[in-house]
Amino acid sequence: MKDINIAICGFGTVGKGVYTLLNSNKELLKSRLGFNLNVRKILVKDINKKRDIIVDKNIFTENYEDILNIEDLDIIVEVIGGTDLAKTVISEALRRKISVVTANKALLALNGFDIVKEAERNKSDLFFEASVAGGIPVIKIFKDSLVGNNIEYIYGILNGTCNYILTQMSENNMSFDIVLKKAQEKGYAEQDPTFDIEGMDAAHKLAILISLAYDIKVDFNDIYIEGISKITDEDIKFAFEFGYAVKLLAIAKKDNGKIEGRVHPVLIEKDSILSNIKGVYNAVYVKGDFLGPSLYYGKGAGSFPTASSVVSDIVDAAINIDKKSVFRKPVYSKRFSAMKKIPLKSINNLITKYYLRFSVKDQPGVLSKISGILGKYNISIEAVIQKGRALPAKQSKSVPIVMITHESLEKNIKKALEVIDNLDITMKKTFFIRIENFNGKN
Amino acid sequence: MKDINIAICGFGTVGKGVYTLLNSNKELLKSRLGFNLNVRKILVKDINKKRDIIVDKNIFTENYEDILNIEDLDIIVEVIGGTDLAKTVISEALRRKISVVTANKALLALNGFDIVKEAERNKSDLFFEASVAGGIPVIKIFKDSLVGNNIEYIYGILNGTCNYILTQMSENNMSFDIVLKKAQEKGYAEQDPTFDIEGMDAAHKLAILISLAYDIKVDFNDIYIEGISKITDEDIKFAFEFGYAVKLLAIAKKDNGKIEGRVHPVLIEKDSILSNIKGVYNAVYVKGDFLGPSLYYGKGAGSFPTASSVVSDIVDAAINIDKKSVFRKPVYSKRFSAMKKIPLKSINNLITKYYLRFSVKDQPGVLSKISGILGKYNISIEAVIQKGRALPAKQSKSVPIVMITHESLEKNIKKALEVIDNLDITMKKTFFIRIENFNGKN
Repeated sequence: MKDINIAICGFGTVGKGVYTLLNSNKELLKSRLGFNLNVRKILVKDINKKRDIIVDKNIFTENYEDILNIEDLDIIVEVIGGTDLAKTVISEALRRKISVVTANKALLALNGFDIVKEAERNKSDLFFEASVAGGIPVIKIFKDSLVGNNIEYIYGILNGTCNYILTQMSENNMSFDIVLKKAQEKGYAEQDPTFDIEGMDAAHKLAILISLAYDIKVDFNDIYIEGISKITDEDIKFAFEFGYAVKLLAIAKKDNGKIEGRVHPVLIEKDSILSNIKGVYNAVYVKGDFLGPSLYYGKGAGSFPTASSVVSDIVDAAINIDKKSVFRKPVYSKRFSAMKKIPLKSINNLITKYYLRFSVKDQPGVLSKISGILGKYNISIEAVIQKGRALPAKQSKSVPIVMITHESLEKNIKKALEVIDNLDITMKKTFFIRIENFNGKN
Repeated sequence: MKDINIAICGFGTVGKGVYTLLNSNKELLKSRLGFNLNVRKILVKDINKKRDIIVDKNIFTENYEDILNIEDLDIIVEVIGGTDLAKTVISEALRRKISVVTANKALLALNGFDIVKEAERNKSDLFFEASVAGGIPVIKIFKDSLVGNNIEYIYGILNGTCNYILTQMSENNMSFDIVLKKAQEKGYAEQDPTFDIEGMDAAHKLAILISLAYDIKVDFNDIYIEGISKITDEDIKFAFEFGYAVKLLAIAKKDNGKIEGRVHPVLIEKDSILSNIKGVYNAVYVKGDFLGPSLYYGKGAGSFPTASSVVSDIVDAAINIDKKSVFRKPVYSKRFSAMKKIPLKSINNLITKYYLRFSVKDQPGVLSKISGILGKYNISIEAVIQKGRALPAKQSKSVPIVMITHESLEKNIKKALEVIDNLDITMKKTFFIRIENFNGKN
């Protein structure tokens, strides 16, 4: 058994975590594998940059071709991020039959077809456990453990930043802006947080899970994406009064042959297991036709948890090399070349309950007018909270009326709200949140 | 790619589930694997028994040698249970280089050494995902996903029967006996429930997890085992007043090189994630040095969830056969022949907080006497609930005094209770429950 030679491309948070793990737990890994995992080179942007970790400078290179040209290189770990250099390095490695481990969700969600095809064409290994839910081993769970199940649905809390913000807003009655600032100070949110709070990051991860779970190629643009930046602390309070918590969920479902893929805020029962996933933690709740419901929970980001996943992939790749069984399994659950590109169900065809918050003039007859219009579009009301006091027309000011509807078609909700938003009693655009019928038991 | 031939030994709950899954999801599996998984024979006790599942009788045999003699047999699924015939079948299959998938926790915990040695000697595959936590893929998670982590601790809710009983006692203020009867009616508890309620089943599973997590051979007798049959509804109420829930946990920890393995009821913070695992569900909470804390949750028993795990093993074994990579990984995380037999830490050396329930005469001075004796053994008190009213000695009747201690040594607790239980104010043996300092954040 010869030692396995590894190059790490990228030396940010994840790269440093992987390097640290491979060093700290070298003996553990050696005793389990029977051979060493040696880091031979690390690709960095600037060799001379000051670093908070002690590494022999000779191991660094600024040129990716130096990496590819290492004799006897077995595995490349791509933790550069982005879709340019990362794609070049991965594609070229796969072509040279070097096994690749990546944490790059954006690349897989947006340019996945190309690199997966490259892996299949060359029968090279491509692993990506760390691309979804950080330290939680969801990729292996879907690919290996749920292999015999038809997946009924997936509910994922896949973005720690959003979950932290919503948890804080809910527990401390604080506004989105104040909590976001706090999250930025704590390092839980980027200086430009758009990518996380607008749901893009969670959508990248969802695209990968859909391909794994349903054996289809996903057009990323098919995934409906809506972030949490419009949620107010008032919404969270009203939701609570109705018995719900507000979460950003990544949702996939298969129903009558149609597959849904959507990322948006939802109201879910406040006692459900997902409502109790707090702070920066991630969780994936998945139901298989034989397994039934199951939940996987842990740290969805961070240097060490992500390194744990990357190293589990390195070990898989290394064993394949050692046992001469490289490309033992396809990249996804099924061979990519046999996966079809199937359009996802449009959000407009969604049927669910809705939370509606109207900002209307506080005057008599408003509720009747709104409910009349909803009725015309086949939307019936399950519950209402109206806290203002109806005043004569002249004194009227804006008050919220919030409602929970019965199950309605999204298309109809949008049409009805367009009409309502054009009334002169309506002061601001109506805000709605979808309600997910999930209590952790169904 | 040739089809893979399978024999199922045992056709009870799990065997039928496996057969059903392989039939129902035949196309899904074929599309993922590229070949068929064919059930060639099923070993049963009585071919003519009436069954609630339609199977061609020609597939049944009552003789295990018929199974072993099938030409081209690739995989044997052992779901007979018990340690006699199961052991014979498994050992003989491994010797003949037939891959084995088993759900047999008792066999692995009690006779594991023999069959694992047989697998290593013959370089045959032996998989056992379904042996721990039913449908939850904890074996693969420990072996594959956590491979780079030192495991700090494992907290497992590994017995659905116990968790159902404790949940019901807690939610409906019912006594142990009444809930047990209800559980038996619902099929959640056996007619002779001893094996589950006294903690043996959970201990078998814990033994397997300890070997996986810490790379040691476990002497099953080293595991401390205590069941839930002495827990009263009063204990659950008192625990709740102190801020705790009562759960049966299987606990493993590594601390200063010493490994603990114990199954017993514990008090844990009532808001912790494990307190909220309700009913027949199982959960495993594990902390790795790099991964941090993580939780895996789902159905720990039942025909279909267990079949999901068995089939994931069948797939693993089948791919190994197809790719000529049988025995690609050792049976446990590390080669069994390199694992040492290390004694577990004695429960008497445990240091933790304790819940104590004294049954004493309701008369003046009792509390002072008890606390005096505890003090002598270095046990200090954090909180007390005494609800009786002190009466003159003659009228005294039994009242409970319950206490939470500060961290104390188990040996001292036992010595102090021996003294207290011999006092003439003590009416019944003092009952204690260990408190686990766990809030799902540490």
